[in-house]
Amino acid sequence: MRHPYNSVVLLLSGGIDSTTLLHSLVDDGTSVYAVSFRYGQMHDKELEYAMRQARLHCESNRIIDLPDIFAGSALTGDRPMPEGNYTDASMRQTVVPNRNMVFLSIAASIAIQRKAEAIAYAAHADDFGTYPDCRREFVEAMGAAIKVCDFAPPRLYVPFLDLRKRDIVALGRDLGIDYAQTWSCYAGGEEPCGKCGACSARNEAMAWNASP
Amino acid sequence: MRHPYNSVVLLLSGGIDSTTLLHSLVDDGTSVYAVSFRYGQMHDKELEYAMRQARLHCESNRIIDLPDIFAGSALTGDRPMPEGNYTDASMRQTVVPNRNMVFLSIAASIAIQRKAEAIAYAAHADDFGTYPDCRREFVEAMGAAIKVCDFAPPRLYVPFLDLRKRDIVALGRDLGIDYAQTWSCYAGGEEPCGKCGACSARNEAMAWNASP
Repeated sequence: MRHPYNSVVLLLSGGIDSTTLLHSLVDDGTSVYAVSFRYGQMHDKELEYAMRQARLHCESNRIIDLPDIFAGSALTGDRPMPEGNYTDASMRQTVVPNRNMVFLSIAASIAIQRKAEAIAYAAHADDFGTYPDCRREFVEAMGAAIKVCDFAPPRLYVPFLDLRKRDIVALGRDLGIDYAQTWSCYAGGEEPCGKCGACSARNEAMAWNASP
Repeated sequence: MRHPYNSVVLLLSGGIDSTTLLHSLVDDGTSVYAVSFRYGQMHDKELEYAMRQARLHCESNRIIDLPDIFAGSALTGDRPMPEGNYTDASMRQTVVPNRNMVFLSIAASIAIQRKAEAIAYAAHADDFGTYPDCRREFVEAMGAAIKVCDFAPPRLYVPFLDLRKRDIVALGRDLGIDYAQTWSCYAGGEEPCGKCGACSARNEAMAWNASP
């Protein structure tokens, strides 16, 4: 995949989508500064994977510790964690209110300071039903806002917006990504739980790519 | 001034604009939750005034301590503080990169969690030349983004957008606001410096309202 920017600030969670975007950008020669967030999620597992990916592949990176501003989600421990398919209505319990706008705002601030050309964000089509702040209309509106947030603003770059997770994994396989070095599970156990929405989406995408 | 919302989350800095908006909202019966930010500004003076106003007039309030994400501004001590008129090009040294988008994003998250109807933001016409994240185009773009950030999103409410600071002071005088209980100066001295852009804009608006 070709990318139009020389330097980006990437939102890196340590999961499949953002890790694939990282590798794809680096493969195309883009300089990547990764930001990851400690936002009240119940475990640091994904951050450990994000750090490892960042150290190997990014120009530099940073974990940002946010104050206690998010509540009301299964991911912050305020609701029971739903099991089942990623597209189930129950998965909306994993929405963290306006989390991605906060992440993107901070990434935009850092992009301005570092004179990076864009903020790279791995939202994709499978997220649309569950996460309001991954939907196309949100991405487009945020892109328009970021474009006027400064006198020399960065751009919002969301190259996976039309892809499904299975397509992202296919892209990653072509890039030689070892997905054992990514973490999706919402629970923080030693091994992935296999039952939460993130595990179910991951396993589905992997199975699709494994079938002949 | 009549306001269309019953409950708002207000960005409260402790200066003239947001304090006037607070009083105007409360005067009209709106329930106000105020958020103020410790974002790396060089002094806590404005926050002390914000806290005092909030304790007297808000339903409740909160100061949020942000991690070290902003740099590159005179307000964060990274450049010399310019003196002179608020509209001078040198005032752009007081821009904190994308600060207001970060503030608005967090306020939107809190509004969703508190089920507040809107985020109230006291950007006004005098800010347009200096602060990119106060301009009409930014306010409109952020309003559009906030409207799609959640399945039950708040609205962005910016009732002073067409007013100048002198008009805001006139409104505040009608509401009986004691502006000695607000703080504008960018420097953190015992008394306002009288020379920074914030002092010059404040003094100009006060003088305009004092003249017969």
